[in-house]
Amino acid sequence: MTKDPQEEPSDDKPLFGSTGRKIIYDKDGKPCRSCNTLLDFKMAGGSLMGALSTKKPSLAKDSVPETYKQEPPDVEQLGKSTWTFLHSVAATYPESPSPSQQDDMRQFMNIFGKIYPCWFCAKDFQKWSSKNEPKVKTQEEFGRWLCDAHNEVNAKLGKPKFDCNLWKQRWKDGWDEGK
Amino acid sequence: MTKDPQEEPSDDKPLFGSTGRKIIYDKDGKPCRSCNTLLDFKMAGGSLMGALSTKKPSLAKDSVPETYKQEPPDVEQLGKSTWTFLHSVAATYPESPSPSQQDDMRQFMNIFGKIYPCWFCAKDFQKWSSKNEPKVKTQEEFGRWLCDAHNEVNAKLGKPKFDCNLWKQRWKDGWDEGK
Repeated sequence: MTKDPQEEPSDDKPLFGSTGRKIIYDKDGKPCRSCNTLLDFKMAGGSLMGALSTKKPSLAKDSVPETYKQEPPDVEQLGKSTWTFLHSVAATYPESPSPSQQDDMRQFMNIFGKIYPCWFCAKDFQKWSSKNEPKVKTQEEFGRWLCDAHNEVNAKLGKPKFDCNLWKQRWKDGWDEGK
Repeated sequence: MTKDPQEEPSDDKPLFGSTGRKIIYDKDGKPCRSCNTLLDFKMAGGSLMGALSTKKPSLAKDSVPETYKQEPPDVEQLGKSTWTFLHSVAATYPESPSPSQQDDMRQFMNIFGKIYPCWFCAKDFQKWSSKNEPKVKTQEEFGRWLCDAHNEVNAKLGKPKFDCNLWKQRWKDGWDEGK
């Protein structure tokens, strides 16, 4: 939580964070909160703090209730939360959706690709899904399509691939509950 | 994780879980995984286990890699993840969105109300948002509208209300980063 000593003493924006990941900046040049880990975001913000702190007085943490004092999610927390939400949506998507339910899901995933908070993740997703159109005809194919999308991200992050034959155990039925 | 002794020895479905919350069932009579805590879901499932276990053999946990062995999210994990996703979407929604961006967000929230995995939560959300149409003309009003929606749920769960004047600190800027 300490802001000094700054890991990056110069005025230049750091290229890499302390986690070793590349720091992602928004178009306005500020570090992107939804695109970096909290640690890297803080590090990048540290070198900008002098310029920014004159713009708006800080709100002292002590003046707000304890339960509020959580930081906005970083890229990892956002990613984990979003996959949890999306796979759960697949888990309750009808097994044989109506044409209108299929349209809704196609539309939902299309807008999702435009509004996902981490802009470079959203760009990657749009690129992937333009070549891999959402499959929404059945719950099974939608669940697998999402699992494939998740594996695409896993591969980029160097994480192990998930066996999509098991998506229902992981996100719908559980492993040994005997559903 | 133990399934016996069953907290509910009869064949009847339990009305309340061990957390004291009412057990929510799907239309087909099975306990709703996205609507209950994992503990309550397991308890409700326990009394149905005999009938269900003959339908499909369990997949032994030991036969899949350690990293897979997570249970599907319960209602609390799903809720927390979804709020994290939605508030983050608000945090990166344009300050002055174009008419087309506004349409997208209106549409997204409309479909969200239909597909949210916990069906009774979705019903509550639909009811609330039919009286409180999504406000999407600016980032500020969308962020506050979502905060109000979240507070509506907080009230139902007996959780403290969040001061929506602080939504940006909680979900966008942080508390003392001086943005």
